[in-house]
Amino acid sequence: MRYELYYWPSIQGRGEFVRLALEEADADYIDVARRPQRGVAALTRFLEGRSGGRPPFAPPFLKAGKRVIAQTANILLWLAPRHGLAPKSEPARLWAHQLQLTIADWLVEAHDAHHPIGGAFYYEDQKPESKRRAAHFTAARLPKFFGYFERVLEREKGGWLLGKAFSYADLSLFQMIAGLRYAFPRAMQGLETKYPRQVALHDRVASRPRIAAYLASKRRVDFNQHGIFRHYPELDA
Amino acid sequence: MRYELYYWPSIQGRGEFVRLALEEADADYIDVARRPQRGVAALTRFLEGRSGGRPPFAPPFLKAGKRVIAQTANILLWLAPRHGLAPKSEPARLWAHQLQLTIADWLVEAHDAHHPIGGAFYYEDQKPESKRRAAHFTAARLPKFFGYFERVLEREKGGWLLGKAFSYADLSLFQMIAGLRYAFPRAMQGLETKYPRQVALHDRVASRPRIAAYLASKRRVDFNQHGIFRHYPELDA
Repeated sequence: MRYELYYWPSIQGRGEFVRLALEEADADYIDVARRPQRGVAALTRFLEGRSGGRPPFAPPFLKAGKRVIAQTANILLWLAPRHGLAPKSEPARLWAHQLQLTIADWLVEAHDAHHPIGGAFYYEDQKPESKRRAAHFTAARLPKFFGYFERVLEREKGGWLLGKAFSYADLSLFQMIAGLRYAFPRAMQGLETKYPRQVALHDRVASRPRIAAYLASKRRVDFNQHGIFRHYPELDA
Repeated sequence: MRYELYYWPSIQGRGEFVRLALEEADADYIDVARRPQRGVAALTRFLEGRSGGRPPFAPPFLKAGKRVIAQTANILLWLAPRHGLAPKSEPARLWAHQLQLTIADWLVEAHDAHHPIGGAFYYEDQKPESKRRAAHFTAARLPKFFGYFERVLEREKGGWLLGKAFSYADLSLFQMIAGLRYAFPRAMQGLETKYPRQVALHDRVASRPRIAAYLASKRRVDFNQHGIFRHYPELDA
């Protein structure tokens, strides 16, 4: 089956968590909105409820045959077990999903560091507010999230978030670290020495053959100043 | 099986979405942190990783036998089908979960209306920022979310988010409406006439016998100024 992924074409954003899973799975997929012709129009057709099916609230969403599944964590919940990226047992799947949802919460905070007043206003119109929020994000929230995931890796042994079983949760943690390095290089330099297990996980994910090939390809959108992770030096304490 | 729900005792918060499901299911449960003795200590034990199992990042979490499941939507994903609050078919379950995750996103925005700079600062220390964010929240985000769920109800017919099948997603939408009425009574008065299907859903949920009994009981924590939904008249345009 050829999947159709629908996500904004010019950013990594939330769609990247799905792209990474599709790439690691070597799945057959089209990144619909990145097609040269009418890609974004195909996406907005769904958002405007003109697709006929149950409507998504926002991208990303994945079309798999007649199914249309939205919400990043929900897509991965369905997709991952079909491609060996989630374990078979129910407790382990719930655990992977729980971690993914915690990463989703973290991602919102990474976004809000540069958009505390909301996505409807330009960054330039919320700079003082961003400075306050980003200072707290890097000083308190990053250590809290990193501390949690480091404890998980310590407890699980095996090097992955589910112990010896590699899963989509590892891909997602890799993406968080990559994004935070882009957005907050100075803060991350100070932090990373404290979380060696996560640095090792990042490197192991990056060197998996399919992920390495993907990262080096044009399919990987570069980090940029329109995405969730943005680099504003004044926010990087 | 007697469930143990772990959540902050003095607010509805995220835990309320689980409480509503447990109540509608007439499930046997203890609201652990609300016990008169050492309830909160039992909760923090888990957060500090002293419980032995896979650690939650934050409350709520549900203990069911040996399982400890965290993240509101993840708890409901597991709990609801066991109590007839989610349909059996996989597409319908994914749809309910997708809606729950969209409600979770909405809830974050309702919180951030009064805490745009972050939960670590008092509201009083982020009042001007809150005014800006809340103005956008009531003027643009509320219509966007309400518009979406109204379209869903229109499309599904049957009066529930899954058509004729009542589910935990309906309980969660009820809770959003109840909370927004508490926090933004003026804005809601102006909005509600446009979304009659959601008002009807709210009323139908509130009059379900077990929910009505719960809402009238002391088990329901009152809305208050420490929770996710807060009423600051200056934020209610």
